[in-house]
Amino acid sequence: MRIGVDVTSGDYAPQNVVLGAIDSLKYITSNTKLVLFGCKETIFSICKDRSVNPEIFEIVNSSEAIEMGDHPVKAYNTKLNSGIVKGFESLKRGQIDAFASCGNTGAMLTGCVTTLKTLPGIIRPCISAELPIYGDRRLLVLDVGFNTDCRPDVLYQFGLLGSVYAKQMMGIVNPRVALLNIGEEKDKGNMSVKEAYSLMSDSIHFNFCGNIESNHLYLDPEADVVVTDGFVGNVLLKQIEGTYSLIKKLSINNDFLERLNYEYYGGTPVLGVESPVIIAHGASSSLAVTNMILQSERALLNKLVDKFKETISYEQRY
Amino acid sequence: MRIGVDVTSGDYAPQNVVLGAIDSLKYITSNTKLVLFGCKETIFSICKDRSVNPEIFEIVNSSEAIEMGDHPVKAYNTKLNSGIVKGFESLKRGQIDAFASCGNTGAMLTGCVTTLKTLPGIIRPCISAELPIYGDRRLLVLDVGFNTDCRPDVLYQFGLLGSVYAKQMMGIVNPRVALLNIGEEKDKGNMSVKEAYSLMSDSIHFNFCGNIESNHLYLDPEADVVVTDGFVGNVLLKQIEGTYSLIKKLSINNDFLERLNYEYYGGTPVLGVESPVIIAHGASSSLAVTNMILQSERALLNKLVDKFKETISYEQRY
Repeated sequence: MRIGVDVTSGDYAPQNVVLGAIDSLKYITSNTKLVLFGCKETIFSICKDRSVNPEIFEIVNSSEAIEMGDHPVKAYNTKLNSGIVKGFESLKRGQIDAFASCGNTGAMLTGCVTTLKTLPGIIRPCISAELPIYGDRRLLVLDVGFNTDCRPDVLYQFGLLGSVYAKQMMGIVNPRVALLNIGEEKDKGNMSVKEAYSLMSDSIHFNFCGNIESNHLYLDPEADVVVTDGFVGNVLLKQIEGTYSLIKKLSINNDFLERLNYEYYGGTPVLGVESPVIIAHGASSSLAVTNMILQSERALLNKLVDKFKETISYEQRY
Repeated sequence: MRIGVDVTSGDYAPQNVVLGAIDSLKYITSNTKLVLFGCKETIFSICKDRSVNPEIFEIVNSSEAIEMGDHPVKAYNTKLNSGIVKGFESLKRGQIDAFASCGNTGAMLTGCVTTLKTLPGIIRPCISAELPIYGDRRLLVLDVGFNTDCRPDVLYQFGLLGSVYAKQMMGIVNPRVALLNIGEEKDKGNMSVKEAYSLMSDSIHFNFCGNIESNHLYLDPEADVVVTDGFVGNVLLKQIEGTYSLIKKLSINNDFLERLNYEYYGGTPVLGVESPVIIAHGASSSLAVTNMILQSERALLNKLVDKFKETISYEQRY
């Protein structure tokens, strides 16, 4: 298995990304090879500082970086020598099996929909996040920012994608899929959510458990997967980020609250495309990079994309 | 001035509501009279327990309660002897000047749009909340649950209503109005938000300051008023409620975090109708009820509705 890692992107790139890749070598299986996309000389120099033989990595020389402030589509179409563009091209050609980056989310998503293919039958890919919740559980929320306006059938498919992800990646046998809403009753919500409720209630493809409100997310929620549109999901995710900043500002130290730090809840996998793609936070530390690489490897080991394909083809038959 | 208080609704009604009304007597001006809508005998008995002469209140006997689980519209149209229905009728007839309740939000909003009139020129009324933010400031968020799908012109009017509220009720001279979004750039957001950005940018009626993201709400946000649709606003508000529950579960004691408790950030005023109406949390304590009554009095003293009318009529002329 070959995992591509973009070393040109991220607030602390290339240093922290290369260090995260070096640290991940302790945990990945012997069959996994890391392919770094970045400036060869710089990677060699960081490895040398750590007394690591750089030949343990395969390096694809990429001299350019797509910056956080760049216009995603424009940058993707012009910065052809960037780690992101070169990574997606390698993924398309089958030279790597998964691709991970802490780069510009918009540019990563542009790569997903222009260079990669969406899985047959999937209307819109989405991005997701595993939120930490009280009691050592995690809760998958999707979409967290790719699709700002979602039709009911798109929300339905997020339920399907989330259910497969929770089974394969989080080890949950029969994941409960809930719809994020502003009331528990089935007639609550905006137009798209009301219609999605009705579609999901009839689902034979996943275990729909009704509406969930945002005050019930942290403490023992009666769900494993929460479906919402990318606008609401992104507001939700960033509100957690804001809560964490507040906690730090108030100098509160608490083990659980520490998990609200994005470094711990990891990257956001893109679901619904033909290869595993993980996008981590721009400000990723080397620990966050290590987690992003391990998450990519888990997606490959658990054959996540194959499971998506099977489930969608089953859905289309029945 | 006569403020109506619904004593039949709320998880701890009538006890806590009457106690909150008694406590508020210490703070309200001598010109303000409280009119309680509830069971006369019960109110007398609670007053007697506290050695308060019940004749300090005017009482409108209301024997029925609209419960939290009742269907709002159905209950409003059938429970004609409830505190909520009797309160709105008194408000319509001018027997009271403002009305406050901890009751079923949907039934309260039904009263607002069926018994009261929307202010001329206002497309949709909305509800708002003053969020506590770090550094002893408050941030007005609207809508927080009345309108789940909002056209761009409706979002624009929320900016107008919020700006007037912040001036009159929060004492902010030139309130900065921001649009809640998932990025700072003007081309971010869902379809309605993108269009609202463009309308708001051209506003001469309020001081638009651009987009704000939810990770910037707690710590020194560069805005005084945040506009969003009622679906997103409700998710946001309930996430704060969830954060507060989590903090309590973790046994963390911190003065600022204590303010995230709904008791402190008060009721949600309905904006855009012809009289002040305040809806408080169903689980309101007597302290929360006292604050709800004081908020109603402030709306009257500051002539909030008159200011709305002036601003809207100005907007329609220019």
